[in-house]
Parts: sequence; structure tokens; C-alpha cells
Amino acid sequence: MKVELLSIGDELLIGQVVNTNAAYLAQALNKIGLEVSYVSVCADTKEAIIEALTTAHSRANLLLVTGGLGPTKDDVTKESLCAFYDDRLEENPEVLAHIEFLFATYIQTPIRPANRTQALLPTKAEVLKNEVGTASAMWFTHKGVHAVFMPGVPREMQHLMESQVLARLKSMSSLIIRHRTLMTYGLGESAIAERIEAIEEQLPPELSLSYLPNFGRVRLRLTAKDRSEALVAHGLAHYGDLIAAQLSDIYFGEEEDGNLAAQVLKAAKRSNMTIASCESCTGGSIASAFTEIAGASAVFAAALVPYQTHQKSALLGIDVALIENHSVVSAPVAEAMALNTRLKTGASIAVSTTGNAGPSKGDSDEPIGTVFIGISTEAHTYAQKFMFGNLRERVIEKASLKALEMLYREIVK
Amino acid sequence: MKVELLSIGDELLIGQVVNTNAAYLAQALNKIGLEVSYVSVCADTKEAIIEALTTAHSRANLLLVTGGLGPTKDDVTKESLCAFYDDRLEENPEVLAHIEFLFATYIQTPIRPANRTQALLPTKAEVLKNEVGTASAMWFTHKGVHAVFMPGVPREMQHLMESQVLARLKSMSSLIIRHRTLMTYGLGESAIAERIEAIEEQLPPELSLSYLPNFGRVRLRLTAKDRSEALVAHGLAHYGDLIAAQLSDIYFGEEEDGNLAAQVLKAAKRSNMTIASCESCTGGSIASAFTEIAGASAVFAAALVPYQTHQKSALLGIDVALIENHSVVSAPVAEAMALNTRLKTGASIAVSTTGNAGPSKGDSDEPIGTVFIGISTEAHTYAQKFMFGNLRERVIEKASLKALEMLYREIVK
Repeated sequence: MKVELLSIGDELLIGQVVNTNAAYLAQALNKIGLEVSYVSVCADTKEAIIEALTTAHSRANLLLVTGGLGPTKDDVTKESLCAFYDDRLEENPEVLAHIEFLFATYIQTPIRPANRTQALLPTKAEVLKNEVGTASAMWFTHKGVHAVFMPGVPREMQHLMESQVLARLKSMSSLIIRHRTLMTYGLGESAIAERIEAIEEQLPPELSLSYLPNFGRVRLRLTAKDRSEALVAHGLAHYGDLIAAQLSDIYFGEEEDGNLAAQVLKAAKRSNMTIASCESCTGGSIASAFTEIAGASAVFAAALVPYQTHQKSALLGIDVALIENHSVVSAPVAEAMALNTRLKTGASIAVSTTGNAGPSKGDSDEPIGTVFIGISTEAHTYAQKFMFGNLRERVIEKASLKALEMLYREIVK
Repeated sequence: MKVELLSIGDELLIGQVVNTNAAYLAQALNKIGLEVSYVSVCADTKEAIIEALTTAHSRANLLLVTGGLGPTKDDVTKESLCAFYDDRLEENPEVLAHIEFLFATYIQTPIRPANRTQALLPTKAEVLKNEVGTASAMWFTHKGVHAVFMPGVPREMQHLMESQVLARLKSMSSLIIRHRTLMTYGLGESAIAERIEAIEEQLPPELSLSYLPNFGRVRLRLTAKDRSEALVAHGLAHYGDLIAAQLSDIYFGEEEDGNLAAQVLKAAKRSNMTIASCESCTGGSIASAFTEIAGASAVFAAALVPYQTHQKSALLGIDVALIENHSVVSAPVAEAMALNTRLKTGASIAVSTTGNAGPSKGDSDEPIGTVFIGISTEAHTYAQKFMFGNLRERVIEKASLKALEMLYREIVK
């Protein structure tokens, strides 16, 4: 089974929108044993769509296409399909009734002629009703190639996949694909490769290993593909554990168990601890990372974001003299932020950040990129200094990740 | 000039990584007048890379390729290039010296044999030195097609583009491409299309209009392409202003001026106001949206995230009886959160969120997806109730956006 994804849309070709649909589809297909060989993006023109369909039909036997099914003039996918499949549009009464129902019930504005045209559908396609929107999905089977066309709005596409498409595709696959991604910190990919060379050489043919470096962390992804569930499960467990043991000093968890914030929450829950954060330069992004995770409220108590300098005194009672003597970006201020937050919230552990994310220096003389991260527990309170470069969003992201890493180390020790 | 982007990497084909490189490259190319016709992603295998290069060379005359240039075994781009271009690898002494320098200066671990192989480069390519990493970029010119190969690590790729590649590509283009994106809320795309039909029909050939619906908001993107800077500037200004005037009741700003958070900050700055947030169900994501923006500290004072129910009393002094009588997800609690936060921080306006993001109900009987958003200014304090569905991350995202929208409306009124 050769599978391709095609996204139609100028917004992707000009970089206005990032192609998250492709990532969602690839993950969903992997889970039912289908591998994607190509992802493509083409323009919103008839010529581009027909050219992309021609190329994809020559390479694949399953094609999932998203985008270009809206009611406005810039959406030309349906007429391109008619040209490509030598078909014509015909009004589908059931779809028209559904669109009228959606307008009457949810949208509560009068239905427009443009919306009625969404019920015009190619006659050779099987129509998949879109319960949550007005653009139907279409399934063509042509010269042995299955091609499923879905709207590009992520929520509608995902609903169609989960309610109808995936169940039908599942029967087309007999392969099992599973990934296991080990997360490490503090060592480069070539140094890691050297340490696990002997294990990598032993990997059986159903397993492959990839290195994913970013932000000074390397993730090691083991992928297992086979028809046997037992072989796949054994391979990931056995070789993953071998690698984790070989890298025990730099290995800190599995990506499939959730990101670093999720692992911190789990570790804290096991230790019966609660967490609070006090964020100046990270501006709430640590709290945000925790609270995205379902069930966070069992562990994550609260956050304070005393962003302007004087708020550190107003919200946390930090001595103005301490800030004046050491500057707001300093270890003593980071320590006071963590300590006062822990005491104020009653959490078992608190983390704090204060730094210059740039582009201008703010209320301190430290160079841009300087961040102090503080930790306070009942046993001790300390702060560490870091330099995270001079790109604002990267400083915030790196400081948040490092704060999570320091929390994790403190909680598991 | 036909331009294509190709990303090499299994991590993109399995959906582990979202293709943000393509979005960055497309935006950067647009700014120098180059349009991307296709974006593709292929696997980390020699066969897939050669097949993708063959297809791209048949369609394009400029190709930007990222990925697969690391030092580990899963990186096979260079050997694929040798096969495709009938070339061989040769050690580049200057690149080797640079790699040795990076290891000695920054990486501070002994250099490995695998790292030295990164100095082995194809002889037919012009080598572009990577100042910030060990993987060099390569520029091939073959049968009239320029193909630039860069590492997939975003920071390194971006540095190479900005320091070397873009300046050279600029001379290949005589077109000017500019976008102007008008943001609207509260009306569907077909209703909008009807209202601006007369303007859309008048658009001159150098202008095109696209509709980008998401989260109940429609963005209207005008794209102008021409060799004349004056014509492009006039077209965007004239027709953009016509559309904005026609939609004045639902138009709230321009995407190129920054997202909604940026517009809120600007509006507050114009009115000499400061902002604070008090976030329960949004967990710091409103604060995070503000503090991502450079210069936020002039307007954004502070945030409180009293996530666990009892923290609303501990941090904000909200009466326990109020919470018990009305439940924590209620208008009176949202109002008290906004009011107390405004008073505690001294900000001119405060926004608050309290809701059930799911998947479990938490400390309230309201259904999942219920969110109360409060606003407090010196003039008044009020709260509104919303239902944002039952997907946790969407509830958080929609509540944050709605809170920003309410702040915006309150500030500009």
C-alpha cells in the first residue's frame, strides 16, 4: 500500500498556515498500519491540482487530499476533480438538506446561494457526509487508486477521519507500525550514536532508529514495522530498554508518555507533591504547558506572572531593596520569587524565571538572553544562571524547557 | 521562476514533527518576490530522495531542500546527491577546520569520527559554510535547475537563508509579492463573500482574494503580484481599505500588524492602559500570548493563575462562601477574579477565565466546555458565559481568543 497526502491551498504555499493537517493524518494512518510515502502541497488552481493528482496517481494507491472545498470563489477542488476524473457535478438532495439543517440550527444566518453549491457533488464519488460542516468528503476509486477528498478545516477533517475514513482504511492494511521515542538531554547526536553503536548494529530488520536533535536535546525514535504484533512489541521493549540503560545518565523519559511537562506532573503525583510557578520572562508558558494536560489540577496549584518589575513586590512581597541591590534579573530575586511563591501557594515545590528575553534590555543590565531559574522546596532554595541567545521566542521556549527539566530533576531525586 | 520546497525526513512522514521549515521558507521567498509552486516531503531513503529530486527537477528551476545532513546513519542525503548528480564526496579542509573549531569552542566534547564525515562533501556543489552548525549547505546548478540543500534544524537553516541564500536568490526575481490579511469575527465566509461581491469582481489582475476560515473567524487575504512596487502598494491599500470599510462592523485589524494579542497591546498603549489577567481554565495562555510580544512589559502588568480552586481564595482573597454558593465556574466568581486582580495589580483593566476544559468535570457541575470570562475596569465589572465544546485544547484556545476579543472591544470602545 503506497500512501500519499496532498494538501491544496495557497495559504500553505505562502507560509501563512503551517501544515498541521499532514502531521495529524500521518499519525492517524500510522496507528492503523499505513505508512505515508509522500506529502505534497499544491496551489488553489485547477492546473496545479490536476498536475498534483496526476503525479500522485502514478505513485500511490491511496491518496488523502485536504482543502479547497469551501463555498467561495477561491475553492476550485470540485471542478478540478470533474476535469481529472471526467465527471460532472450534480445536486445531492441529502447533502442539501443537511446544509439547510446546519444553517437553521447552528449558523442562524440565512442560507446563501453559495452554500447551496456545496451540495453540488461529483457523480462518480461516494459522498461521505460531514456531520460538523457544510463541505462533504468524497471518495473516488479510479484505476485501483483510492482518493479521499476532505475539507481543510482541521476540526472537520479530523471528525471525518475518526467517524468514517479510518475505519474503512483499516481493512486495507495488515502491517503494524509502532514508534517508541526516548528523550535525552545534554549530549550531541554523534556522541550518542557512538555510545549505542553496538546496539544499533544488532537491530533486527523490523526495527529502525532515527536521531531527532533540537534545542540541545536529542530524541531517539525506534520504529517497528511488522505483521506480528508480538514481534513489534518485543522489539520496541527489548531494544528501547537496552538503549535507555546504555544512556541512563542522559535518558529522561519517553515521548509517547507525554512531553516533559506531562512527565513532571506524573513524577510529582507519584511523590505526592504539588507545583507552583512564578514566571517573569517565561510569562506564563510553564503554567500553560502544565495546564494543557488533562488532570493537571491534581498537581499544578497555581502560577504568578509578576511581569512588570514592581509587580514582584506587589504580588509577592519581594523587598524593593533586594531588586535594587541585585537587579531584577539576578539569582537572589529568582530565589525570592520561588520561595515566596511556594509559601504563598502552599505548593511542595516552586520554580521561578527572571530574565531578559529581548529584544531590548528591560530593567536590568544583564545581556539579552540571560535567565535565572530558581527552585524552592522545603529542603532548599537555589537559582541557576543560563544564557539562551538573543531570539525572544527561543529564550522563552528554552527557559521554559530548562525550568521543567530542573523541576523534573528535583522531583525525582 | 518555478520554485519548489522539498523536506527530507521520516519524522515529517509519521507526523512526529510539523513542517514549520516549509512555512518559514515560503514566507522568506515571498518577501523577495519568489512564489512556491509545490512543497513536498519524502522519506530518509536513497530511493525516495532520488525519486523526489527527479520529479522536482522536471517541474521547477529552483529547489530548496532541507534535512538529512546530520552525522548519524539515518542521514543519507549526501550519498543520494552523489547518485543523482553523478558525483562523489571529498573532504573539504576548510569545513573540517570549522567543525573542529566548533567542537573545541562550543560543544566541548571530543570530536567523533562521525563529525569528521560532515566535512565530506560532493565535488560538484558549491559549499555554503554553516556558521552555526556542523552540516554545510550545498548549492548545485544542474541542467538549468538551482538546488540548494540545507540542514533541517530550523535555526541552522534559517541562519543559512538569512546570511547567504536569500541575498543570492533575490537577483533571480523581478516580481514583487505582498499580502494584506484583514481579520474579521462573527460572520461566515459565504455571508462575507456576498457582502463584498462587488469589490471582488472589480479586483484588477494583479490582485487575488482568499478566504481563510478558522475558529469562527474569517481572515481575508489580498495578494498582489506585479513588477511595479507602486501598483502592488496601491492595490493592497485601495482594495483592502474598500473591503475593510464594507465590513467595518466585523473587521478588527490586519494580520500583518500582529495577532490579536499584539493588537490588544497596541490599543491599550494608545489609551495609556495596563492589562492584567487572572486565568483558571486558560492556565496562563493569555499571559503567554501577551508576553511573547516584544515590548509587552510596557502594557502587560501581571497575571495570576489560581488553578486549584482553593488558590482563588489564597492568592486573590475570594470569599470561600462565594465559591461554595455559586460554584467555581460561575459569573460571580469570574467577576470577583477580574475585580480582585485589577485591584491587586493596579492595572487599568483585568480579564478573568474560569471554566471546565475537560475531560473530567472538576469542581463544578457545569457541563464540559462552559467558560465564564470576566472583565473589570474602573467603570464596571461583568462576566459572560460561553460554551466551547468538549475538546480540552480547543476550549483553552477558544477561551483565550474570546478573552482577547473582549479586552479589545472594551479597550477601543
